[in-house]
Amino acid sequence: MVEARVTTLADVAALAGVSVATASKALNNRQQVAPTTRQRVVEAAEQLRFRPNTLAKSLLTGRSGTIGLVTHDLDGRFSIPVLMGVEDAAGTGKMSALLCDARGDSLREAYHLQALLGRRVDGLVVVGARPDPRESLGRLPVPVVYAYAPSLDPEDMSVTVDHEAGGRIGVEHLIACGRSRIAVISGDPAYGAAHQRATGALAALGAAGLAPWGGEVLFGSWTESWGRSATEMFLARPDARDAERGIDGILCGSDQIARGVLDVLRERGVAVPREVSVVSHDNWELFATGSRPQLTSVDMHLEDLGRRAANRLFEAIEGRATPGIDVVPSSLVMRESSLPTG
Amino acid sequence: MVEARVTTLADVAALAGVSVATASKALNNRQQVAPTTRQRVVEAAEQLRFRPNTLAKSLLTGRSGTIGLVTHDLDGRFSIPVLMGVEDAAGTGKMSALLCDARGDSLREAYHLQALLGRRVDGLVVVGARPDPRESLGRLPVPVVYAYAPSLDPEDMSVTVDHEAGGRIGVEHLIACGRSRIAVISGDPAYGAAHQRATGALAALGAAGLAPWGGEVLFGSWTESWGRSATEMFLARPDARDAERGIDGILCGSDQIARGVLDVLRERGVAVPREVSVVSHDNWELFATGSRPQLTSVDMHLEDLGRRAANRLFEAIEGRATPGIDVVPSSLVMRESSLPTG
Repeated sequence: MVEARVTTLADVAALAGVSVATASKALNNRQQVAPTTRQRVVEAAEQLRFRPNTLAKSLLTGRSGTIGLVTHDLDGRFSIPVLMGVEDAAGTGKMSALLCDARGDSLREAYHLQALLGRRVDGLVVVGARPDPRESLGRLPVPVVYAYAPSLDPEDMSVTVDHEAGGRIGVEHLIACGRSRIAVISGDPAYGAAHQRATGALAALGAAGLAPWGGEVLFGSWTESWGRSATEMFLARPDARDAERGIDGILCGSDQIARGVLDVLRERGVAVPREVSVVSHDNWELFATGSRPQLTSVDMHLEDLGRRAANRLFEAIEGRATPGIDVVPSSLVMRESSLPTG
Repeated sequence: MVEARVTTLADVAALAGVSVATASKALNNRQQVAPTTRQRVVEAAEQLRFRPNTLAKSLLTGRSGTIGLVTHDLDGRFSIPVLMGVEDAAGTGKMSALLCDARGDSLREAYHLQALLGRRVDGLVVVGARPDPRESLGRLPVPVVYAYAPSLDPEDMSVTVDHEAGGRIGVEHLIACGRSRIAVISGDPAYGAAHQRATGALAALGAAGLAPWGGEVLFGSWTESWGRSATEMFLARPDARDAERGIDGILCGSDQIARGVLDVLRERGVAVPREVSVVSHDNWELFATGSRPQLTSVDMHLEDLGRRAANRLFEAIEGRATPGIDVVPSSLVMRESSLPTG
C-alpha cells in the first residue's frame, strides 16, 4: 500500500522550530549550531523518522555512494558467489550496488556502462562469465575492477584465480594419497582455464617423475556426460584395472565431470577411493556432497574474490588505486573420494 | 585507469556558445529554444560525449529511476531466475536496480530497506528465498511487489507460483502415460510448497479414482540422498516390482530428489520409463538434462515471474497499482523419463 508521505527536511525544521538551513547544518554536524538546537533537530528527525536524502547529499559531495556491478551470466555458477562477495562488502561499507546483467554481449555491456555512468556511480566491478582474460574497457571517468575474468591490460585492476595452481594441488593431493597412475579429464578446450588446470596437473606429475595415465590429458566439455564417456574410454583399455599398471587416481576438471566419473566407476564395480581416488575442481557443494562418495574438490573462494574486488574498488575511489592482477589462492576441500587407503 | 574528466553541462554550453540554462532547456526538449540553437547544443553534447546527470535530473522529476531489489538468498536456485527477470524488465525500461541481499534475516532486511528508501528508490521488489507466504513490510512511501514468496496481506502486490497445480499436472501426465500405481515422494515438510504440491498430486489421483502407491505421500528433504532413501524404502516392499500391483510411476518433489530416485532405480535394474515413469518438479536444466534418462519436470517459469513483478511495480510507480496475488502458471517439460511406452 502506498500512503505514507516521505518526510522532508522542511517537516523536521518545522517541528524543531528552526530554519531548513539550520536543520541541515544540525544533521550534518556542522559547527555553527548550538548543542541544544542540534538536540532539538535530532529529536524531531527521529520522531518523524526522517531519512536524509542520499541523492541530494551526493550532489554536494560529488559521490553517489553507489557502485555499478556488471555481470555476464546472472544464472552462472561462478558469477553469483563473486556477486555475493561484492554485495557483502558494499553493504557493510554503506555503498549500494546497481546491478546490470550484460549476458555476455559487448553491446549490452556498453549500453549498461553508459547508463551506470549517467547515474554517476563512483566505480565499477565487472564480473566475467568465464575465467579467461577479457578486453579492457579502456579509460573511464571512474575506477573499474575486473573480477574472475581479469583484464588483458596490466594497468587495469583485476582480481582472479590461479587455475594452474588448482590443477597442481589436485594432483599433489592424489600423489600424497599414494597414487601414481593418475588420469586427467579436463573440460571444454575452448576455455583457457581447462588448459591452465591441465598444465598445472602435468607440472605436478612431472615434478614427481610421472606422466598422466593413458599418455595425455583428455579434453571434452564441463558436463556429467563427458565425465561418463571419458571414464568408459579409460576403462575400455585392456590394462585399465590391472593391479600393477591400471588407473589408481583421476583428476577431473569440474565437479560435474567428476559426478559422471563416479557414476560409471560405481556401475563398473570400481571401489572409490580404495581402487581409484577421485579429485575434482570447483567444490560446488550441491554436486560435491550429493555424490557417492562425497567429492574431494578444489575451491576457488569466489565469495572472497568478490569481497576483495569490492574493497580494492573502494580504495581506488578513495584515491588509492593499485593497478595489476590480484590472485586469490585456491585450496582443497577433502572428502571421501580421495581419502588415503590405509 | 582513471584519467578522463566527466563532461558537464557547462562544457556543452561553452562549446555551443550558449548559457547553461539554455543548454539545459535544449537537451530537455523545452519549447523556449530556437531549433538552430537546440541543434548546436545537441551537436556539442555529442561531440563531448555528454551524459546527462541522471542524479540531478531525478531531483527535479521526483523520481530516481531506480528500484530496490531485496533478495534473501543470492546463491539460491530460485531467486536468481526471478532476479534475472526483474533485471531484464528494468533494463529495457531504462530503470536501474539497486541490489541488496538480506540473507533471510529480517534485521538485515530492515537495514537494507532504510538504505534503499534513503536513496529514494521509486519502488521495491522483494524476492523470497522460499515460496511460503511472508509477513508484509506494511505501509511504505513507495510501492512494493513481493516475488516468489507472496505477502500475507492481500492488499499488497504479489507475484507467485501455483504449487498445487504443479503437483496436479505432474500426476495428470503420469496418468496420461498409462500409469496408475503412482508413488509420491515430496520434499521438506517445513515448506508449505511441499504440502501444496502433495495436495495437488492427491487431488489428481483422487479425480482418477486412485490413491498414492504405498498409501501415503512421503516427506523428507529436497536432497538426492532423500530420493535414494525413499526409493529404497519403496523397493523393499514385497510387491514393489509385482507386474500387477507394483509401482509404475513416481512423482518427485524436486529434480534433486528425482536424481536420487533414478540412480537407485538404475542400480536395481528397474527400467525407466518402461517399468516406472518418473516426473519431477523445478526443471533445473543441470539436473534434468544431466541425468539418465533425462527428466520430465514441472517448470515454474521464474524468469517470467520476475519480469511480471517488475512490470507490475513500474505500473504502480505510474500510479496504476493493482493489489492482490498474480499467479504464474507452471507447465510440464517432457523428456525421456516419462515418455509413454508403446
